[in-house]
Amino acid sequence: MPATEKTLKDLFHETLKDIYYAEKQILRALPKMAKKAESEQLAAAFEKHREETEGHVERLEQVFEMIGKSPRGKTCDAIVGIIDESKEVMEDFAETEALDAGILASAQAVEHYEISRYGTLAAWAAQLDLPKAVKLLETTLAEEKKTDELLSKLAETSVNRKAA
Amino acid sequence: MPATEKTLKDLFHETLKDIYYAEKQILRALPKMAKKAESEQLAAAFEKHREETEGHVERLEQVFEMIGKSPRGKTCDAIVGIIDESKEVMEDFAETEALDAGILASAQAVEHYEISRYGTLAAWAAQLDLPKAVKLLETTLAEEKKTDELLSKLAETSVNRKAA
Repeated sequence: MPATEKTLKDLFHETLKDIYYAEKQILRALPKMAKKAESEQLAAAFEKHREETEGHVERLEQVFEMIGKSPRGKTCDAIVGIIDESKEVMEDFAETEALDAGILASAQAVEHYEISRYGTLAAWAAQLDLPKAVKLLETTLAEEKKTDELLSKLAETSVNRKAA
Repeated sequence: MPATEKTLKDLFHETLKDIYYAEKQILRALPKMAKKAESEQLAAAFEKHREETEGHVERLEQVFEMIGKSPRGKTCDAIVGIIDESKEVMEDFAETEALDAGILASAQAVEHYEISRYGTLAAWAAQLDLPKAVKLLETTLAEEKKTDELLSKLAETSVNRKAA
């Protein structure tokens, strides 16, 4: 085993850069999704989540600090793909009754990517004995899950009905 | 409103093509992930999920039939991005103790993408009054969630510990 072998700490750091980049992309995407949404409730949900996302970025910056690293992102192909798909839906279904249902579904794909990453990062932080990082990551994880649930409710009670 | 306006049914069909493509990519990726995994338990979990995924593809083909369409995929940028990230982790952490933790995390990102898509499709199928499609989509959704939980357990009880 070479002395320079990469460890779980490196993997944690790489994944932190991945989600940091993703959150910044999401910060840019949410206002565009809010602008396109026909439903005021959906637009309001995106605006609220944009504000929360600013907090997620700040928490990530604190976690970077805890492991002695500068906050820096690296291209996250997954979020780029998910956001590209949301743009495609917004174009293909522009000015149709189904548009909001498509935008909402894209937002849930974003949330689920984040849920998987924050779940992983919190588990790794626990393994790396970083309890303060665990707490920050789990706080964000809980907010992502709550947003996903809110979007599911909005889909069922309003957006999907209007689309059909 | 033009007569050719796209509807929720079109959105359902487009999203079906998206996840159909994704499942086919996942079928190709899982054996590679199983081969790279050091942990026999993790490799076995991937192999089991590959078999389940064959069933998911068949169920999707039944849903295509229910809406009178031929099963056809269209490039899903999201899954392409997620799988590209898994390849990157497998390269960057090859032959390290952290490799399995990285592969497992990638697999959970895949599961969460699928959970979001099947959840959306099942809700839309209900709205479109396709109860048989709802049942098929919810059956797959339940399997994806179960796989995600299994991976979380495997991470906590074994893979992350070995990585640390």
